[in-house]
Amino acid sequence: MDMETENWAGTAMRPVGLIIRQKDPNNLEMPFDQLGDFITPSELFYIRSHFPTPELDPGAYRLSIGGAVRNELSLRYADIRAMPSRTCVATLECAGNSRVFLVPPEPGAQWELGAVGNAEWTGVPLFVLLEHAGLADDVCDLVLEGADRGVPKEEPKPPGPISYARSIPRTRAMEPDVLIAYQMNGQDLTPDHGYPLRAIVPGHYGMASVKWLTHIVAATQPFQGYWQTSDYGYWDDSEGTPVRRPLAEMKLKSQIARPRVYERLEPGRPYTIFGAAWAGVTDVIEIWISLDGGSSWVQGEFLDPISRHAWRRWKYDWITPAQPGRYTLLARARGADQRAQPDGHNANFGSYVIDHPLPIEVFVAAP
Amino acid sequence: MDMETENWAGTAMRPVGLIIRQKDPNNLEMPFDQLGDFITPSELFYIRSHFPTPELDPGAYRLSIGGAVRNELSLRYADIRAMPSRTCVATLECAGNSRVFLVPPEPGAQWELGAVGNAEWTGVPLFVLLEHAGLADDVCDLVLEGADRGVPKEEPKPPGPISYARSIPRTRAMEPDVLIAYQMNGQDLTPDHGYPLRAIVPGHYGMASVKWLTHIVAATQPFQGYWQTSDYGYWDDSEGTPVRRPLAEMKLKSQIARPRVYERLEPGRPYTIFGAAWAGVTDVIEIWISLDGGSSWVQGEFLDPISRHAWRRWKYDWITPAQPGRYTLLARARGADQRAQPDGHNANFGSYVIDHPLPIEVFVAAP
Repeated sequence: MDMETENWAGTAMRPVGLIIRQKDPNNLEMPFDQLGDFITPSELFYIRSHFPTPELDPGAYRLSIGGAVRNELSLRYADIRAMPSRTCVATLECAGNSRVFLVPPEPGAQWELGAVGNAEWTGVPLFVLLEHAGLADDVCDLVLEGADRGVPKEEPKPPGPISYARSIPRTRAMEPDVLIAYQMNGQDLTPDHGYPLRAIVPGHYGMASVKWLTHIVAATQPFQGYWQTSDYGYWDDSEGTPVRRPLAEMKLKSQIARPRVYERLEPGRPYTIFGAAWAGVTDVIEIWISLDGGSSWVQGEFLDPISRHAWRRWKYDWITPAQPGRYTLLARARGADQRAQPDGHNANFGSYVIDHPLPIEVFVAAP
Repeated sequence: MDMETENWAGTAMRPVGLIIRQKDPNNLEMPFDQLGDFITPSELFYIRSHFPTPELDPGAYRLSIGGAVRNELSLRYADIRAMPSRTCVATLECAGNSRVFLVPPEPGAQWELGAVGNAEWTGVPLFVLLEHAGLADDVCDLVLEGADRGVPKEEPKPPGPISYARSIPRTRAMEPDVLIAYQMNGQDLTPDHGYPLRAIVPGHYGMASVKWLTHIVAATQPFQGYWQTSDYGYWDDSEGTPVRRPLAEMKLKSQIARPRVYERLEPGRPYTIFGAAWAGVTDVIEIWISLDGGSSWVQGEFLDPISRHAWRRWKYDWITPAQPGRYTLLARARGADQRAQPDGHNANFGSYVIDHPLPIEVFVAAP
């Protein structure tokens, strides 16, 4: 069987572990050339940790819901497992995914393409819990806090250890697809992925899907925590003087999974370029590929239907050039809002939101 | 065919590109789980660049040999190609390979396992050129300078751009295995690997094998350049007050190629652990594997004979535990000098010489 023409999807590639980007806490990415099925196997799903993984006993575990609520709740793991559940497929991308492509380099884990994955999540819709608790009328933000804790590094930084926490707006929190999840791809969460419970906020960068979730706090003012301001924030200059805002929804993005950077391809042969595209607030409706570093573009085809908040895998059947040499491939998606990925990185996002077409240099050479 | 029992060597795994650790200048590593044959295919060989790759015209190219010599030489590429050549196999390891395993992290490219490779190099022995030039009696160091140039980053740093340069002692330079090489694995060097000419200093960390070599300077004092002192240096405290010395020969080291970190293995099944071991100043004669994080050790077997300055691949046929869980694998080599790899990293080496057994955590789980 011809590997080059069979490489686009569904090949029986076994999971082969992860790439270390930071050790202790573990920050590991998927070798993105291993992209296969629509659903990313759990063992290939990227691991993003701010602090050492907390070891939580499901018997002693409690999820508290407090703040501006009528009924404070303290839920056991078993309580959550006993409630009606919902399952959804959502792509999670780390806001710093593809950071290694930034020139000059930006601080932080030098993620390449693999800090993104698409999984099936099962849990209790957050709005159900919030209705039990009874939100006060003036609640605007729901703060999600995890059991992971430590001293963060970005400036300005707090004076001592803090727990990882992010908020989402009340309107988003009340939508039925936001989950307090206990399963990933039909199996209980592993410690690295947030056991026993984590939030899943489809469409948002991964930082919103707080792992090892222990506290939900209903807030009547927008939350101004460290990971909402110092880190995972950006400068919004759309109205003149730049103001600091929290990152939220994933931007439209596409990535080439195969070939991988510096892969060597035979000249004049069929090769199926294969990748995925996703977006937080629109649907991906077109995928364009450049085989010449951006001078010209051809359209690829999708392998998956539109499914809000899940990626769409795509392919393009290429005949490699007869002329040996170095070629730069790019992919650029277009959304239902008629916007395409931008030409370059927006510096207002600092070391985050690397959503421009990412160059994949390959060599065409005789074997 | 059973992948788990067939994975140890010689499987028909095709090259699948490199992992980006830094972009521009390119610092790319081999996915080390792709280790296969004794010789690393050129397209899988790691690329370590300090500055952008110089584009050198072989027609205009000159290699000058000067300093304390009787006859200054200016050699054309064609001159070198016309001379009698020698071929040797040598493992090159970047002195910062495995840096991502250091906790807390050290600055620099966060190499995992793939900044090492074993290739066949062809060129003219350096001593032949030095005999043509006629070294003065008091020459002690040969400075090798490349065409790559820029402003380096480590402190203390020079006031402006400098060319990459490293020296080797005269005694080492006169040994017949030190090459001015123009071929790698039987093909002309690619631009990333030093075209048209590079040094190959077998047994030394990769920094000594200067790429894009343009100048050789015979020095009568030990060379104190930036990459000999600020960078690629260490603190030698063997005689009391620490003194700064240049890194030189590779330390004894072994690495596990398969399984990869976080690979998932089936319980109670054969799995062949596979890796490589090398050393700069001794021969690797034993390889020991721990399957329990270092509590106990079993002996592996070598797949390659001893060949000075080339790595030896090794394997260990494991029956994975029946008990699912997380297991930490380690490899530790022993040399003909009866020394084994150290327990941990020696802080005197800063961000270099990561030569202790490197933990590979895997999960044993039912499919």
